[in-house]
Amino acid sequence: MKPKTVQMGENSMEPKTVQMGENSMELNTALTGENSMEFNTALTGGNSMEHNALQMGENFMELKTARRMSYIKASEIREILKVTEKPEVISFAGGLPAPELFPIEEIKRANQIVLEEDGRKALQYSTTEGYPPLRQWIAERMNKRLGTTFDSDNILITHGSQQALDLSGKVFLDEGDTVLCESPTYLAAISAFRAYGCRFAEIPTNANGMIMPELEKQIQEHQNAKLIYIIPDFQNPTGRTWNLESRRRLAEISAKYNIAVIEDNPYGELRFEGEILPSTKSFDKLGNILCTGTFSKVFCPGYRIGWIAGEKKIIRKHVLVKQGVDLQCNTIAQMEISKYLQLYDIDKHIEKIRETYKHRRDIAVDMMSRVFPEEVNFTRPEGGLFTWVELPSDINARDVLEKCLEKNVAFVPGGSFFPNGGRENTFRINFSNMPEDRIVEGLTRIGGILCDYF
Amino acid sequence: MKPKTVQMGENSMEPKTVQMGENSMELNTALTGENSMEFNTALTGGNSMEHNALQMGENFMELKTARRMSYIKASEIREILKVTEKPEVISFAGGLPAPELFPIEEIKRANQIVLEEDGRKALQYSTTEGYPPLRQWIAERMNKRLGTTFDSDNILITHGSQQALDLSGKVFLDEGDTVLCESPTYLAAISAFRAYGCRFAEIPTNANGMIMPELEKQIQEHQNAKLIYIIPDFQNPTGRTWNLESRRRLAEISAKYNIAVIEDNPYGELRFEGEILPSTKSFDKLGNILCTGTFSKVFCPGYRIGWIAGEKKIIRKHVLVKQGVDLQCNTIAQMEISKYLQLYDIDKHIEKIRETYKHRRDIAVDMMSRVFPEEVNFTRPEGGLFTWVELPSDINARDVLEKCLEKNVAFVPGGSFFPNGGRENTFRINFSNMPEDRIVEGLTRIGGILCDYF
Repeated sequence: MKPKTVQMGENSMEPKTVQMGENSMELNTALTGENSMEFNTALTGGNSMEHNALQMGENFMELKTARRMSYIKASEIREILKVTEKPEVISFAGGLPAPELFPIEEIKRANQIVLEEDGRKALQYSTTEGYPPLRQWIAERMNKRLGTTFDSDNILITHGSQQALDLSGKVFLDEGDTVLCESPTYLAAISAFRAYGCRFAEIPTNANGMIMPELEKQIQEHQNAKLIYIIPDFQNPTGRTWNLESRRRLAEISAKYNIAVIEDNPYGELRFEGEILPSTKSFDKLGNILCTGTFSKVFCPGYRIGWIAGEKKIIRKHVLVKQGVDLQCNTIAQMEISKYLQLYDIDKHIEKIRETYKHRRDIAVDMMSRVFPEEVNFTRPEGGLFTWVELPSDINARDVLEKCLEKNVAFVPGGSFFPNGGRENTFRINFSNMPEDRIVEGLTRIGGILCDYF
Repeated sequence: MKPKTVQMGENSMEPKTVQMGENSMELNTALTGENSMEFNTALTGGNSMEHNALQMGENFMELKTARRMSYIKASEIREILKVTEKPEVISFAGGLPAPELFPIEEIKRANQIVLEEDGRKALQYSTTEGYPPLRQWIAERMNKRLGTTFDSDNILITHGSQQALDLSGKVFLDEGDTVLCESPTYLAAISAFRAYGCRFAEIPTNANGMIMPELEKQIQEHQNAKLIYIIPDFQNPTGRTWNLESRRRLAEISAKYNIAVIEDNPYGELRFEGEILPSTKSFDKLGNILCTGTFSKVFCPGYRIGWIAGEKKIIRKHVLVKQGVDLQCNTIAQMEISKYLQLYDIDKHIEKIRETYKHRRDIAVDMMSRVFPEEVNFTRPEGGLFTWVELPSDINARDVLEKCLEKNVAFVPGGSFFPNGGRENTFRINFSNMPEDRIVEGLTRIGGILCDYF
């Protein structure tokens, strides 16, 4: 395969495709020098040694690892989270829900009832597919909200929606295949797919979603295009939402070229304003589109319960893969969530989350427009957890972050959200995880630092 | 790579290496006709179609999947478990612990305390590495029992020990690499590694463990030997335990050829008699050996909490892989287990499990010697959950199983435990999951059917 530079529309970013080995070097972050040491090992000898001769003394030999270990790198978010653990740091870096909204008392009750009524079952092995009443609930919820026509056999419970991405990578991707994704896209989806040795074709996006002629063009250019990965609602990291036309068109293109689509939707329930739009899946005539979802943002992430939904035949392939990966999800976690959904009104709970996050979004966006220099642009999301900031192209957000960390405030630089690198003049702000006064204080500090650049 | 037939020692099985594509056909089980249909799709067209032309009408196109989908097949155990769900079936098929021993009341209490003391933390995202106090407990436990010298940074919490196998596959295996394993070996380890496109070299075993000269010979024969997978304590499926000399020698061979080893140890705590032997890891001078463990057999499997332990550098690689796979394990499950370990004496609990399983093993082995024909051999394990039955070579255990299912009794045919197929005259009996009277009744039925063959 030959890397090449892709031409971009005017509303879009400027991603380019680079070779993997190269890429792993380029993406080594300024913050994690440790990693750049570690990940070079596979490139510089470990793998090329003959295993049947000790060429160096004891303790100097590297175990041979897989080729993929030369381009799997640490999640920049997870690494920054370690830096920002100190309570004095105001961190906009994570994607964490507000813990003060977790329904702790309700969960305590659900746990006791599940263990009293059915403890032996709750603590035992169970099926790979997942707990049937929970799968049924998910199918009905999706049908009601997203225009799908699922039953419980269309649903596989996964270990967070992150696992759904890993399983799909395993089902679909051979080394050298191409994944088409929004530019920028969710950082940990890049990690999940990259582990299968794929390349990424970044499709430029604007306020309406992926730019569809560009998607079609790149599908034609990549004969090994295998998977389209999208987040149409309140995208991570940009906060943008696709319009109806982009959704319909995506489904048509997926059908025309017979390419699988993963429609990732962790934030869809968290709409602050505007109308709910049907999923791209609702326009899918051939059964090519898979949908993922999670309880992490509407309930709590600690349980690690998500799902993947799609045609039974392709869900069955994910089930087979999951058997080898981890047998099944946590039985009691599935039963507790199911019990919670039976005992309580989750819509009321989600309404509370929406109100809180909407208020925080309003404050964040209001503050940014007041304290950020006018040369700095940012999105105003209609829902979700994130807003996206673009600096003039000559300012590096990693440089800004270093200055911010000195003032005990943090965010995630945007470069890592571009699988092929570049666009270092961007960063992501999370507004869901912090009380209002800290949002104000934190953004004021960032604004002060940004003003020094102008 | 050229498949070839391996010569075996006299005490051993007769595995052979076959090509993957071929293999996936051969292994399609008599029981799961459904699967043989499904798995042929990748071989017969889906993958070879041009993606940019609709060659058939709607609904007839197969989505292109990865090559590995042609050889990933359903877990025979998980498929049989579906058949044996009816309460009237006496099933020796699963590997399920006895649910009547689950500490339900203690877990209820641990849950309430964790949620009261630290609910927001328990329900939130947490680190990929796992909950530090739990990792510390595991390190200390391993050091005490297995002669290792770990601290908490040597431990990564995984979603059951099954996930540890998947992560190691991802860290170590490229397509075409060879995994050396006992013959037979744990069925779901075969699934985990096979998904990375590896081949298997089966090393014959006897009552003392892997036959070491044979291991060394096959390492020399396979230039792409990358990983040795072993279960030295109460092996699944044979129930056999390696002697001290095999353990020491394995560590030496791993060092000599610089090959990584996964020492899987889910049953080690369940020794009914004889002395605890040090792990192969305790003889590891280069840091090539990784150990896996789990709470599934000494606490309960529903939580899906296991671990992998090893040198920090190589554990770190597993952490990076896990970030892309599922971010982290269930936070509250880790905190509840940790709280349970702090509040209660798990050794007392394990002693109860040991006594129960020892009693069941005694009854099972006693019954088999009484009701099985003398031409049938079986192991008498010193611990664990399984015994292994060998029939004369002309009797097919799948045929026996069919007759048994008619009499509502089940086991797992042994063929699936040989990654390269063959040895259909074997089966595995689980004795941990059933009250004594059902063990007696079930083995009497199997014995009656076996007697008809002679």
